Amino acid sequence: MTITLPALDQSRDLVQPLLRSAVARLDPTSRKVAAYHFGWCDENGRQTNASGGKAIRSALALLGAAAVCGDRQTAVPAAVAVELVHNFSLIHDDLMDRDTERRHRATVWALWGDGLAVLAGDALLSLAYEVLFETGSPRAGRVGQLLAEAVRELIRGQVADLEFESRARVGAAECESMAIGKTAALLRASSCIGAVFVGAAPRTTDALAEYGHQVGIAFQLVDDLLGLWGEPAVTGKPVFSDLVQHKKTLPITWAIENGGAPGRELAAWLTRDQQAVSQDELAYAAGLVEQAGGRDWAAREADRRIELALAALDKVPMAPDCRDEYVRLARFIVERTA
Amino acid sequence: MTITLPALDQSRDLVQPLLRSAVARLDPTSRKVAAYHFGWCDENGRQTNASGGKAIRSALALLGAAAVCGDRQTAVPAAVAVELVHNFSLIHDDLMDRDTERRHRATVWALWGDGLAVLAGDALLSLAYEVLFETGSPRAGRVGQLLAEAVRELIRGQVADLEFESRARVGAAECESMAIGKTAALLRASSCIGAVFVGAAPRTTDALAEYGHQVGIAFQLVDDLLGLWGEPAVTGKPVFSDLVQHKKTLPITWAIENGGAPGRELAAWLTRDQQAVSQDELAYAAGLVEQAGGRDWAAREADRRIELALAALDKVPMAPDCRDEYVRLARFIVERTA
Repeated sequence: MTITLPALDQSRDLVQPLLRSAVARLDPTSRKVAAYHFGWCDENGRQTNASGGKAIRSALALLGAAAVCGDRQTAVPAAVAVELVHNFSLIHDDLMDRDTERRHRATVWALWGDGLAVLAGDALLSLAYEVLFETGSPRAGRVGQLLAEAVRELIRGQVADLEFESRARVGAAECESMAIGKTAALLRASSCIGAVFVGAAPRTTDALAEYGHQVGIAFQLVDDLLGLWGEPAVTGKPVFSDLVQHKKTLPITWAIENGGAPGRELAAWLTRDQQAVSQDELAYAAGLVEQAGGRDWAAREADRRIELALAALDKVPMAPDCRDEYVRLARFIVERTA
Repeated sequence: MTITLPALDQSRDLVQPLLRSAVARLDPTSRKVAAYHFGWCDENGRQTNASGGKAIRSALALLGAAAVCGDRQTAVPAAVAVELVHNFSLIHDDLMDRDTERRHRATVWALWGDGLAVLAGDALLSLAYEVLFETGSPRAGRVGQLLAEAVRELIRGQVADLEFESRARVGAAECESMAIGKTAALLRASSCIGAVFVGAAPRTTDALAEYGHQVGIAFQLVDDLLGLWGEPAVTGKPVFSDLVQHKKTLPITWAIENGGAPGRELAAWLTRDQQAVSQDELAYAAGLVEQAGGRDWAAREADRRIELALAALDKVPMAPDCRDEYVRLARFIVERTA
């Protein structure tokens, strides 16, 4: 069962009108591809109500504004911008990773080919900045800089991820650095841009950025756990999917470095020929990660990161219901099953 | 022999420091890929002095500022932004079109694969906007909007170009609309953003935009002529290259629609099997374009567009040496051989 969070639905409702009007400006083909990706229509353009993702990033942006001034609506352009950046990166990452499914639906490149996937991603990235420029707000520049920095980090993380594929061994520290780029950077930006956009002081926006950073690392740890032990019917991925692809994830690289004999056996297993691995072999390798302590470590480390995230919030005076929302959002991230 | 234009070298010198410092912020891999693409190093990162392209777009942006206030330096961020956007589109277009050479060197995807080509292009697109946000100028927002509109047009043009590949017949009007997106839109933006950035009135920036639009269509017409009759040693492309690829270009679509019997024969030739076409057959098809009047029409139409471009300038009072530079730039575009 997927945990739902009312705040996510509310922020999706706030963000939708501007998000849809931005996408509506694209040429008909890119518009259809983007609308499909967001879950607004099927591949033939017929209206649907598919999942457009959890929208955690835009919810964080709006929550940052709510924490500072009580008003979410003002920060909608910043929230739309980060949602566009996130979805640009999903479309391009799916293409690069040759993932054929996302949110239980065919990915853009799998349906329309590489060319339209490249272009639809490009279109969403550029739209993100266009939405900010259009606000005419003097603070849009700072939000744009924060997003552009996050995009550079996203790209650094994805470059590292691609490079890891061709390497036999990846250290735990390198893997963490990759995750900070690929996942934490945009959550960090999401968490502070709403507050920046409504004019919060640096002390506040820095603390919110730290919340996003820590929550981002926790998010990746949970993702990596789900990539090994997630329920296929919920995640939409095959069982032990990260092991099928020989991915070097946080629990795996940690287990190899710190897991004694089972860790060494796991390292040896990962260098073996990747052709036609049986379910028994995958279960054996997942067992090695567990025996080496990788599963426990990742779960504990995710909890520790969530504590650090909540500690960062102590520097930001805010209404109790806002604080409560931050706590529930953090809990949602570690307890989610997809 | 390639025509050179001193103004292009001067503007390259003005733009280089900010362009290089922007690229220097990328992760080491994306930085190397981008530096290679710009001609600053070879594929191993060793410094070289290869051609980084004609830099017409940044020259136009600086010239727009010079025409309005006599100062090019102020508009450097706008010029750098448009140069980054242009090179993002080249890297992604080469990937989508599977072109293996640009400026007599291997293309990015051909050297490093699809993943790094997607990411390097993404990085340059995002950097373009980052450079604008960083200026802190209240006019950066308007420049950003103009560039983002041009990017949407670029994407519309490239979507159409991809779609044309799978179609037997493309009308001359559709082909012109594609060229307006793919080529004219960014030249149009280039031509006005420098003036916008230094605070020119709409009457002036509209006239400069019109110059860029017309010059852009002329640019594509000349490109299409070079794609048929360009000197392979100069263009770096095989003889009759557009016919080898069965591209639907401006002179070809015009010849089919307006060229009587040779035009109809050309249309029939283009629907034939594309496997192993001999040089004689290519020369025959190019001859059909010529007999159908496509070559003459494209040359005359390019001249007409240049006249319209220069007429637009009449609305902008400027120093004679600036006007002279616009005239030489327009002439360079129609007389170039690569």
